[in-house]
Amino acid sequence: MSKYCIGIDIGGTNTDIGLVSDEGHVIGRRRLATQGFTEARAYISAMENSVRELMQEHNADIGSIGIGAPNSNFYEGCIDKNTANLPIKERIPLKAAMEERFGVPAVVDNDANAAAYGEMIFGGARGMRHIITITLGTGIGSGIIVDGKLVHGHTGTAGELGHSIVMPGGRLCGCGRKGCIETYASARGICQNYIEAAAQAGKPLTESDVQTLTCQQVGEAALQGDPIALKAYDTTAYWLGIALANAANFSAPQAIFLMGGPTRAGEALLKPLRKYFEENLLYIYKDKISVHLSQLNGNDAAILGAAALGRIES
Amino acid sequence: MSKYCIGIDIGGTNTDIGLVSDEGHVIGRRRLATQGFTEARAYISAMENSVRELMQEHNADIGSIGIGAPNSNFYEGCIDKNTANLPIKERIPLKAAMEERFGVPAVVDNDANAAAYGEMIFGGARGMRHIITITLGTGIGSGIIVDGKLVHGHTGTAGELGHSIVMPGGRLCGCGRKGCIETYASARGICQNYIEAAAQAGKPLTESDVQTLTCQQVGEAALQGDPIALKAYDTTAYWLGIALANAANFSAPQAIFLMGGPTRAGEALLKPLRKYFEENLLYIYKDKISVHLSQLNGNDAAILGAAALGRIES
Repeated sequence: MSKYCIGIDIGGTNTDIGLVSDEGHVIGRRRLATQGFTEARAYISAMENSVRELMQEHNADIGSIGIGAPNSNFYEGCIDKNTANLPIKERIPLKAAMEERFGVPAVVDNDANAAAYGEMIFGGARGMRHIITITLGTGIGSGIIVDGKLVHGHTGTAGELGHSIVMPGGRLCGCGRKGCIETYASARGICQNYIEAAAQAGKPLTESDVQTLTCQQVGEAALQGDPIALKAYDTTAYWLGIALANAANFSAPQAIFLMGGPTRAGEALLKPLRKYFEENLLYIYKDKISVHLSQLNGNDAAILGAAALGRIES
Repeated sequence: MSKYCIGIDIGGTNTDIGLVSDEGHVIGRRRLATQGFTEARAYISAMENSVRELMQEHNADIGSIGIGAPNSNFYEGCIDKNTANLPIKERIPLKAAMEERFGVPAVVDNDANAAAYGEMIFGGARGMRHIITITLGTGIGSGIIVDGKLVHGHTGTAGELGHSIVMPGGRLCGCGRKGCIETYASARGICQNYIEAAAQAGKPLTESDVQTLTCQQVGEAALQGDPIALKAYDTTAYWLGIALANAANFSAPQAIFLMGGPTRAGEALLKPLRKYFEENLLYIYKDKISVHLSQLNGNDAAILGAAALGRIES
């Protein structure tokens, strides 16, 4: 039997389970509909069955199980109770449950942290020991790796760079505070940048256009050279450049990697971001920290991140 | 012979060398006038002689040598060439020189980093594994400890929280950028806060008062309840509260410790700082991260920090 590991990505819609080789190939996969489960016990059983099927199908032995999940605590190895977007409202003790069932180490962490390990083991950060990864999406997640290990902090919940305040008194954030980088560079933040850029260009959006605007539309327009969309991404890059320059002061990483839907705009984001990042970097770090897009295949990234998490932390 | 360690604090004026017990007592000390040395070789010899005298005088064996020094690189174990404030302009390979002379591990790092270890081993952070220390002075230094170890990053120069931008486009910093926390909460920043508070109170300072104002004066006035000085410290605390809340997002420490001259104002700084810090903390960290003044004796702090550095990193 060959030795593989399991990566599980828990999202509000789907739970994706992958059998992953040492080289970072997803050999087999299963998908559960997360919303179909209202009890932890049935959910865990379904996960167990999926993993056993994958192992049998590929005649594979596994060395570890990594699970990326929202609202999870690395130290406790569980998903907290009353997690938004999950129909299961009780605490889900995934680490203990999986270790008992499979007799191998299991690790639970949030998906942004798992993504950082995925990039380090299977992506563009191979061989690096100090990186920061930023996941742009509905919110902004981050994973900070210092000397090859994720920073979890005293509480187990470190690495919330999306909620760094870059503009005191700025845009209102979902967290209740003002001026978090998330309000300027998440999908919603980018839409807001577009709405403001359009108004400034003398082409304000209609109420209904504002309601239906998506970040994907802004990204596609930017790829086609639309000046308002490019301006929206320039604004995104400006604030993100400051936030990343501040992050550099903290851990002086070798590289920063960006992932998530809004990064599909590619150079429309990356080119101005590199400029603003360098401009705002403290002189001792200038030209020493590179900024990249993730080099993981978007479809596999979450499973690979979870698999890497299990491999490194087990 | 008893087992001790050596802590050396290199400043622009004095080089303080201390023999330190396991319990954190400075058993003996020597002082060299830093400005009296223009060549690395003579400087290292003088340090060696001082250490040997201390060892003989106290019949002490040593287990490690820790050195806190400006513009030093932890990975390379040296002070870089052309360091401001030092008359020696060549590179000073302190780690190699001391290890060769004494046959024990030697470690070199900047003084703000050494201070963090001092607090963790001998001060108020005993038993803690995740802390941040902030040294207020001419500039602002910081030491970030994650899981019991200082964060050095890829370059060896991580932990520059003094240069986190808290107000884009704000006050001009000595680093050439605008809005670094150093411009609002260093000794000079506090003086600027005082000058602005006085003007706002309708009592603007004269040109000559501005020229001679010191942070120590502002601190003493604050201790005596002077409303303008209290306002200056409130402004300091406001900006520092945001900077520390942002730092919490990064490493979720158990506690943050402040040290350095401006902290002598005590509660005039600490009380508003705790308020603004909590106000700006992301909700998941609220009431979980305490803020303290250093519990090390100010006179011994630098030597103890260097000694702790040598003990932990060797």
